[in-house]
Amino acid sequence: MEIKNKKWILKERPQGLVKDSDFELITETIPEIKNGEILLENIYLSFDPTQRTWLNDVPGYLPPVQIDEVVRAGGIGRVIQSKNSEYNVNDLVFGFVGWQTHCITKAESDDRFRIVPELLPIPTMLNVMGSTGITAYYGLIELGDPKPGETVLVSGAAGATGSVVVQIAKLKGCNVIAIAGGEEKCHWLKEVGADDVIDYKNANVNAELPKVAKNGIDIYFDNVGGEILETVLNLININARVLLCGGISSGYDATRPPDGPSNLFSLIIKRATMQGFLVLDYLPRSQQAIEEIATWVMEGKLQHREDIQEGIENCPQTLNRLFTGANKGKQLLKI
Amino acid sequence: MEIKNKKWILKERPQGLVKDSDFELITETIPEIKNGEILLENIYLSFDPTQRTWLNDVPGYLPPVQIDEVVRAGGIGRVIQSKNSEYNVNDLVFGFVGWQTHCITKAESDDRFRIVPELLPIPTMLNVMGSTGITAYYGLIELGDPKPGETVLVSGAAGATGSVVVQIAKLKGCNVIAIAGGEEKCHWLKEVGADDVIDYKNANVNAELPKVAKNGIDIYFDNVGGEILETVLNLININARVLLCGGISSGYDATRPPDGPSNLFSLIIKRATMQGFLVLDYLPRSQQAIEEIATWVMEGKLQHREDIQEGIENCPQTLNRLFTGANKGKQLLKI
Repeated sequence: MEIKNKKWILKERPQGLVKDSDFELITETIPEIKNGEILLENIYLSFDPTQRTWLNDVPGYLPPVQIDEVVRAGGIGRVIQSKNSEYNVNDLVFGFVGWQTHCITKAESDDRFRIVPELLPIPTMLNVMGSTGITAYYGLIELGDPKPGETVLVSGAAGATGSVVVQIAKLKGCNVIAIAGGEEKCHWLKEVGADDVIDYKNANVNAELPKVAKNGIDIYFDNVGGEILETVLNLININARVLLCGGISSGYDATRPPDGPSNLFSLIIKRATMQGFLVLDYLPRSQQAIEEIATWVMEGKLQHREDIQEGIENCPQTLNRLFTGANKGKQLLKI
Repeated sequence: MEIKNKKWILKERPQGLVKDSDFELITETIPEIKNGEILLENIYLSFDPTQRTWLNDVPGYLPPVQIDEVVRAGGIGRVIQSKNSEYNVNDLVFGFVGWQTHCITKAESDDRFRIVPELLPIPTMLNVMGSTGITAYYGLIELGDPKPGETVLVSGAAGATGSVVVQIAKLKGCNVIAIAGGEEKCHWLKEVGADDVIDYKNANVNAELPKVAKNGIDIYFDNVGGEILETVLNLININARVLLCGGISSGYDATRPPDGPSNLFSLIIKRATMQGFLVLDYLPRSQQAIEEIATWVMEGKLQHREDIQEGIENCPQTLNRLFTGANKGKQLLKI
């Protein structure tokens, strides 16, 4: 039986938010798979801010998506054909499946495709047990090393990574200040345990933060990039850790970002560390994170929510939801 | 016999470079010392960029020098009277002796006064075995963790800290790029082992650096503050370490410093760390550094030079030499 693949390929490098016309949705007949390959039917795609960087012709931690290539994206698919002894038909596989309905991959050559146990619903797995949850886990626990009583500030706190950071910080006994946009998100963050929430759409974060962070800031988990960094650097405590996880507001769209904070000097006075990290470095040893997060979810200690769009034709607009703040929780697309 | 102390007290908060009129040099009769106190005759004063920050009314890692207080400065003095059983007359003592000819201190209440063995001439001790050498040692070795073959970039490389960093990096098998101002300093840096030297007074550092750092930059030991940080962040390798030790060009004089680099995002892509540190945190365990540095000096593996001004009346102008780049090596003043 002939199987058709619908896939989005990149046609032009986008500027700022993407447009449908930056891409082309094409349909092709899937060829017979070769030895060592598997064919996945993609089920859910994951949308993460970093995907936007891959569309720029800028050297990064992964090569840019080339013109006429399928747009790179993580997701979960089910094996429907296998000529690879490590994969069986019906296995659920997590990997860079791309903006397409099907995916052929020679999986053994690439450790980014791995079989996932069906412990929880797929959207939950792609959210808290996927790369966003793993980012939160290793970033906060390993690099942040949070201690009970410390103050943890989280920007982009209602997002997929941020909301997990907020809750792990609470599980570790920290005082948590969350920044998010809009009443509904802020209300939810209070519900999941944030001690203080600043709504950046209805308040001046730079003015509010000093009032809320009365004991200073020990850990800043930055999911959005520079905008409030200068204010944060004025509030950090001795030995503070600033963790740079994302740069939605400044780094993702290849336009010239604004200048950085004028007070990096504060890192000296406060013997503080600013550290950037990528979840890719932690994936090979992510089992510990996945198991602990799954336990927290099953015990009801870790709340999560997914924003599920539908239809392969909506990929470009779904990506934009991350940058307009439209997404409520982890952004997914059901194919 | 009556002993007179000449001391510089702060009269007005300076703006930018200091003026003699920001201070007053007064003479006072030294009172009889109390139980637990010692009286030092100061021999050499140490001048470090950080002293300038203590003159600003800005909270820092040490309280600001108050109006009418003696200006704080490190130095070495000899005990001439002691009512403290831990100190004998003639002991050589390192501590915050201040801009004055004599110093009374209740030494046991303050671990910043310690007896130093007379292993080497006093200027050498105040230089490479003093806080500048200890800064270089712990900053580079402990925080930088240099590995053979890595590229280490050092700004302010002809200064007291920078020149020790350059040489320790070479002892650790690194490739070293040094930045300094003026032909004479650059020539000396080549002599002590720097592989490449950029003269910021005769070249555009931002243009030269990419040409010289062909293998990228693994460690940036920043003694001068932000100016070239943006260029450096474009050149760092994966897992790079940016060590912020000083901010002569941007942070010391309490005027609004320039905005920071627009590419902190690079710390994420390169999983890099930017860390500020202060030598004060390392002084309690500085014995290891002092011994290893002394060994290197005695074996001829660590070159050093001191810029020695003379006369207590020249303290203010000696401090300015650090900021005009006039000093050649560690800035000292012989009383």
